[in-house]
Amino acid sequence: MPTRNKPDLTLHTDFYELNMMQTYISQGRQNQKAVFEMFFRKMPFGNGYAIFAGLQQVIDYIQNLRFTDSDIKYLESLHDFTPEFIDYLKHFKFRGTIRSAVEGDLVFNHEPILQIEGTLPECTLVETAILNMVNYSILIATKASRIRLAADDQPIMEFGSRRAQDVDAAIWGTRAAYIGGFDSTSNVLAGKKFGIPVAGTIAHSLIEAYGNEYEAFMAYASTHKNCIFLVDTFDTIHSGIPNAIKVAKKMGNKINFVGIRLDSGDMAYLSKKARKMLDDAGFPNAKITASNGLDEHLILSLKMQKARIDSWGVGTKLITAYDQPSLGGVYKLVAVEDPKTHQLRDSMKVSDNVEKITTPGLKQVWRITERKDGKSEGDYVTTIDEDPRKQDHVYMFHPQFTYINKTIDDFYAKPVLKTIFKDGKLVYHQPNIKDIRKHAQNSVSLLWPEYSRLMNPQTYPVDLSKKLWTRKQNLLKHIHDNVEKMQKNSNEE
Amino acid sequence: MPTRNKPDLTLHTDFYELNMMQTYISQGRQNQKAVFEMFFRKMPFGNGYAIFAGLQQVIDYIQNLRFTDSDIKYLESLHDFTPEFIDYLKHFKFRGTIRSAVEGDLVFNHEPILQIEGTLPECTLVETAILNMVNYSILIATKASRIRLAADDQPIMEFGSRRAQDVDAAIWGTRAAYIGGFDSTSNVLAGKKFGIPVAGTIAHSLIEAYGNEYEAFMAYASTHKNCIFLVDTFDTIHSGIPNAIKVAKKMGNKINFVGIRLDSGDMAYLSKKARKMLDDAGFPNAKITASNGLDEHLILSLKMQKARIDSWGVGTKLITAYDQPSLGGVYKLVAVEDPKTHQLRDSMKVSDNVEKITTPGLKQVWRITERKDGKSEGDYVTTIDEDPRKQDHVYMFHPQFTYINKTIDDFYAKPVLKTIFKDGKLVYHQPNIKDIRKHAQNSVSLLWPEYSRLMNPQTYPVDLSKKLWTRKQNLLKHIHDNVEKMQKNSNEE
Repeated sequence: MPTRNKPDLTLHTDFYELNMMQTYISQGRQNQKAVFEMFFRKMPFGNGYAIFAGLQQVIDYIQNLRFTDSDIKYLESLHDFTPEFIDYLKHFKFRGTIRSAVEGDLVFNHEPILQIEGTLPECTLVETAILNMVNYSILIATKASRIRLAADDQPIMEFGSRRAQDVDAAIWGTRAAYIGGFDSTSNVLAGKKFGIPVAGTIAHSLIEAYGNEYEAFMAYASTHKNCIFLVDTFDTIHSGIPNAIKVAKKMGNKINFVGIRLDSGDMAYLSKKARKMLDDAGFPNAKITASNGLDEHLILSLKMQKARIDSWGVGTKLITAYDQPSLGGVYKLVAVEDPKTHQLRDSMKVSDNVEKITTPGLKQVWRITERKDGKSEGDYVTTIDEDPRKQDHVYMFHPQFTYINKTIDDFYAKPVLKTIFKDGKLVYHQPNIKDIRKHAQNSVSLLWPEYSRLMNPQTYPVDLSKKLWTRKQNLLKHIHDNVEKMQKNSNEE
Repeated sequence: MPTRNKPDLTLHTDFYELNMMQTYISQGRQNQKAVFEMFFRKMPFGNGYAIFAGLQQVIDYIQNLRFTDSDIKYLESLHDFTPEFIDYLKHFKFRGTIRSAVEGDLVFNHEPILQIEGTLPECTLVETAILNMVNYSILIATKASRIRLAADDQPIMEFGSRRAQDVDAAIWGTRAAYIGGFDSTSNVLAGKKFGIPVAGTIAHSLIEAYGNEYEAFMAYASTHKNCIFLVDTFDTIHSGIPNAIKVAKKMGNKINFVGIRLDSGDMAYLSKKARKMLDDAGFPNAKITASNGLDEHLILSLKMQKARIDSWGVGTKLITAYDQPSLGGVYKLVAVEDPKTHQLRDSMKVSDNVEKITTPGLKQVWRITERKDGKSEGDYVTTIDEDPRKQDHVYMFHPQFTYINKTIDDFYAKPVLKTIFKDGKLVYHQPNIKDIRKHAQNSVSLLWPEYSRLMNPQTYPVDLSKKLWTRKQNLLKHIHDNVEKMQKNSNEE
């Protein structure tokens, strides 16, 4: 079931990907195997965990990968590409294998979250689109999860469409928000596409159109069973709430007076005042919804002041991930086939910025949980041929500060990367979105609270197996030796 | 020429819009005329001006507005809507009139930038999508324009696709960036869709795939005429630049050695060092491109330190508008037909937050420029029936601090809002994108430099005509009187 109505994303790639592909094709490397991994270096929002999302888009994208005649015509018009390469593109078909975390999984920095094994050109083509889609969905699912924790068990509604960064962000962003724990969205198209519950009642314009708040509320109440009245068009306390109460009394059982919505002013003060007015009027069950610049911090701050708010409409700050609008996930070559031996050899980027150094090799990530309490002890990244399930203990140590270490005896080890595409064929069945959302909530609940604290959480361990760690150190030394050798040669020249 | 391959955005609306539409339909208000205006309250990034963009998407969206059978089926499945309303939607066709700033225009806060005159339900339906698309495009075009000013006349390339907030932001964001003054994009799909020049050569993965930097550069040089070598995969100074030079010498005239790209490390230091190495090797024309976390501030800072950088690849900070990822434009009812007199009556929202108070009435915005130097003196917002071109002077005063005022005698007045759709029919012909970009650059050049300074610019005047100002004050008083009356009544009850 491809949900993206866009079969034309094949050119949604960076121009340098095509340039590099042409080099590979021209040099007879079109079948050389490679492994690329996506990972991110910094936890978003300083959160203790991230929620994986965006796989649905990757699936849709990969399934629709093909260069149309019009794509080919455009590429030819650039006069940058050889006829041989254009011919390759005409017959291009993705035949790679993709392993990935699944939606709703927790993922952490410095570990592979999506992995592609395929030919050099096909792995190269898909970098841009995959990063684009997965980076954003993880970001929003994680932000949503933080807001979910702040709101505790109160309803949270996604209201951000008008402030999202263009259409896809509104649609796919609210999907990610739902996965991260939101209850509903205002976006009708997202409701239709994904089966997310839709929510919303009235805007200021309805009241303005009638020119009279009481008449406007009456008009709405006469045409809808469930009523939430927006009370701040003229004056919340002196006009909005009294009119809402007046209409609720007048309509009686003919409507379901769900409550009121506050959209401006001091929400702590107004909500307490509103609560009292509603209670005094005989509507103790009428709920107070708040919207206007909300995020996890403002929700917590309002709760601290005992604001009487029952549900939260969150827009801009969620859908744009306002405090950190980009995840920064990258996609790096970690292994490549040796043209002589046909074996994969490790590959890494060194960089002048230490934090940009990558971990080489085809890997698996294992989530280690203590058998006695089911809580996560950390992630253990291994070479692909290691299987901690066959070990009677795992020795985990910090990859930089190796003196920080622990040995875990009685544990489960679950592989994080699952096979999604096998040799170009989709082999993974996506659960429905409600189950993905449930899975995300279960995943968060298995964390020690120290890791899920909204501010300054404890760092969740992402450790390398001794074997992987050693291979990384060896390759790093090898590259340094090569650079030194080159330097010596050029000094002697 | 609709460029958006998506005829299915009709449901891209907030659920409350449909709820309000149902009220209007049920109450016989389906033909009641209304005027809504889009405006924003705060200049993005504290900039002195904003660049209008996003109109192409609005045009595509409006032209494709219709409820498909599957949309109708979905809406019926919600059991929220009456058969009468569903029937209305089945036959829905947008017949409104849209006036708007055109792409590349300068726009300012607190003035209408897009205006819809139509029936209450049709104006209500389109709010969400229009805000969503226009908010983002203005944001990015404006950010791009700031970066253009910082880079002066050096080439700037949009590299942000992988960090954009999903696919549309990458595609339409780079279009807005081009309008704002960027020279090219890495995104091939945007290149194809919009005719924007595409740019890019190689990533680290090419060097890693060969395992040997020299061989990788040679491979690229053997398969491409124009070469920019990325030099930081292993060690910029000791490996990357020497290898680039070695390959350039070896290949000689067989390639066009455009230069090198720096993507990590200290770019001021590395660029100066690189410049010297390239010059010493006999390549004074080889250019140095920088990428990695750039924005207008970092570019200025690097220039201040005399970094020897010739062109700039800008990604995340541009495409997400990192320092302010949302514009916050709103869409408000400003006038509505009186059911009895059939005249438009002014409408406004008061709100408990002063800055959320709107200016009522169907309006025009006039850009006032001094005839003697062609420089902008400010914007003058009038009621629709005023025409300053027929006046021999304009009296401009600050709408809050009315003692700040000036009289301008020798001026041009140009209307900012142009008719785009007339009674549902597209009557505006979009210029091609190169002309839109040129128009944006001309527009910026007509500003006094005090208004285009990157930090703490002078505030550009957006003033109301005396007639409009008076109508706003009168309506404000009328609403306050009504609230007081209501309060008195309820106290007496």
